[in-house]
Amino acid sequence: MAHTLKVLAKLARRYRVDQGARFRLSTHDPAEVHLSGGKSEAKKLLEDGRERVRDLQERLYAQDRWSVLMVLQAMDAAGKDSTIEHVMSGVNPQGCQVVSFKQPSQEELDHDFLWRCARALPERGRIGIFNRSHYEELLVVRVHPELLQRQTLPKTLVTPKIWEQRAGDIANWESYLARNGTAIAKIFLHVSRDEQRKRFQARLDEPEKNWKFHVSDVAERAHWDAYQQAYQDAIRRTAAPHAPWYVVPADTKWFTRLVVMAALIQTLESLELQFPKIAGERKQELVRAGELLAAEKRKPRKGAR
Amino acid sequence: MAHTLKVLAKLARRYRVDQGARFRLSTHDPAEVHLSGGKSEAKKLLEDGRERVRDLQERLYAQDRWSVLMVLQAMDAAGKDSTIEHVMSGVNPQGCQVVSFKQPSQEELDHDFLWRCARALPERGRIGIFNRSHYEELLVVRVHPELLQRQTLPKTLVTPKIWEQRAGDIANWESYLARNGTAIAKIFLHVSRDEQRKRFQARLDEPEKNWKFHVSDVAERAHWDAYQQAYQDAIRRTAAPHAPWYVVPADTKWFTRLVVMAALIQTLESLELQFPKIAGERKQELVRAGELLAAEKRKPRKGAR
Repeated sequence: MAHTLKVLAKLARRYRVDQGARFRLSTHDPAEVHLSGGKSEAKKLLEDGRERVRDLQERLYAQDRWSVLMVLQAMDAAGKDSTIEHVMSGVNPQGCQVVSFKQPSQEELDHDFLWRCARALPERGRIGIFNRSHYEELLVVRVHPELLQRQTLPKTLVTPKIWEQRAGDIANWESYLARNGTAIAKIFLHVSRDEQRKRFQARLDEPEKNWKFHVSDVAERAHWDAYQQAYQDAIRRTAAPHAPWYVVPADTKWFTRLVVMAALIQTLESLELQFPKIAGERKQELVRAGELLAAEKRKPRKGAR
Repeated sequence: MAHTLKVLAKLARRYRVDQGARFRLSTHDPAEVHLSGGKSEAKKLLEDGRERVRDLQERLYAQDRWSVLMVLQAMDAAGKDSTIEHVMSGVNPQGCQVVSFKQPSQEELDHDFLWRCARALPERGRIGIFNRSHYEELLVVRVHPELLQRQTLPKTLVTPKIWEQRAGDIANWESYLARNGTAIAKIFLHVSRDEQRKRFQARLDEPEKNWKFHVSDVAERAHWDAYQQAYQDAIRRTAAPHAPWYVVPADTKWFTRLVVMAALIQTLESLELQFPKIAGERKQELVRAGELLAAEKRKPRKGAR
C-alpha cells in the first residue's frame, strides 16, 4: 500500500494545475500514459487505491467537519460516467453523492447561475461529485451564446466582460467554499479530437452502445477549437491551490481512471483526517457503558435465555 | 405623486451608505425624524409610496429580468416585522416573498453559511425580503462565538481572521448577485438602547404584547456595545454602490417605515423597469388575434346564445 500511495501521489502532482496564469492546454498530451508497469500495474494500483479511498471516506464521515467536492468536466465521450463508476464504486454510497447537471430548468434559469450548484453541494462529512458543473457556464454557454439569452439577464448586464466576470465569480465562490470546509478538486478529462471520433464511431457500430449516441454530439465537433480555448481560459482563471485543476490525459481509459483516483486520494490525504478522539467525560461514559455490558454478560437478566 | 417621489428620493439618499470605508455608526442618530410635515405628511407619503411600489413591482414582474433582494437587520424590538407589514402590504404577494431566518437547522449547519440564504433567493421578476439574513454570521455569531462551534468547521479554518474573511465572502457574493440581475438593498433599523428598553417594557405591561417577549432578549442587552461594533464593522466591509446599506433611524416607527419604503422605491427606480415591448412578428400575432375577436363580435358563432 505504501508503494501504491507513493505512485499515486506522484501522478496527482504531475497533472495538478494550481497556478492558472501561465497554463497552456497545448503542452498537455491527451494520449500520455505515464506508468512504467502499464495496464497490469494500473489494475493493482486501482484496487489498492479503492481500499484507501474507502478508508479515507470513513474518516471523513466520522470526523464530519470537511466535505469534498470533485468536479468532472470533459468533452463528450471523454469517459466521465465510466470514470465515476470505476473510481467511486466501493465507496459507501451513504457518504457519497453524484449530481449530474443537465440543461437547466426554467426554475434554475430564473435564478443566478450558481444557484443550482450551491443547492447541490455535499454536506460536511461527504464526497460530492459534480458530473458537469458550474463550469458549463464558461464552456457550453460561452461557445453557444444563445444559451445565455435563455437566462434572461437584464440586458445592461450582458457585456463582453461577462465571461471574465463569471470566471472571477466562480473563483471567489470556490475560495469561499474552501474557507468553509469544502476541499475542491476539479478534473478535466482531456481527450483528443481523434479519439473522440473513434469513440463516436464505436457508439454507431456497436448496437449495445447505440443508446449513448446523439446526432447533436457530432455537430458539436465543429466547435472543437472554441471549446479547447474555453477550457484553457476557464482553467487559467480558476486554478488555485485551494481549488486545483487536474488535467487528465483521457485517450487511454485505464490511465484516466488511475489519475482521477490519484487526484481524489490526494485531496482526501491533504485534510489529515482523523477519527474523532474521545476524551474526558465522554470517555468515562464509554468506560461505564463497557462495565455495564460486561456485568450483564457475567449475570444474565432473569428470564433471559 | 411627483412631490412624494422627490421627498422619498431625498430621504433614501440621506440614509444610504454605499462607501463603507469611513462609516461610523455614532454619527447616526436613532431618534432623528427628518420630515417637515411630521406624522401627518408621512401618512400621505406612505400611501402614495405604496401605490408607486405596486406599480413598479408590476413592471418588475412583467419584465422578468431583475430580482430585488431587501435585507432587514436590526436589534430586537427595532420594528422589523411591523416595517415589513406596513411597507409591503399592498404588493401583490405573487411577486413578493418574505423569508425569516431563525436558528439554523442541523442540515443548514452542515453546509457553508451562505447555503440557506442562496436557496431562498428571489427568482427574476420578484422582490425577496430577508427578515434577518446572512449578516447574522457577522452579528450574533460574532458576538456569541459558541454559535460558530455549532457549525463544526475544520479547526484549522477557524482563525482570528474569520470575521474579516466572512465579510469579504459576503461582499463577493453580493457583487456576484448584482452582476446576475439581483438589485440589493440592505436595511439596518437603528434603534437606541433606551428605546429598546421602553419597547420591552411595553411587551411586559400590555397583555396582548406578552407573546412577543422573550426573557433571553433582555439578557442580550448586556452585549449591546458588542453588537453596535459588529454592525458598524459589517456595514463598513460590505457597503457598496451595487449593495448599499440604509441606516434607518428606528426610534420613531412611522418615520422608520417611510425611510424603508423610500429605500425600496429607490432600488426599484434605479432599474428603469419597463413593460416588455411587443414588436415584429409577435405584434402581428396580436393584431391578428384582435381582428379575430372583432370578427367574432360582428358574426356570432352559430348556435351560440
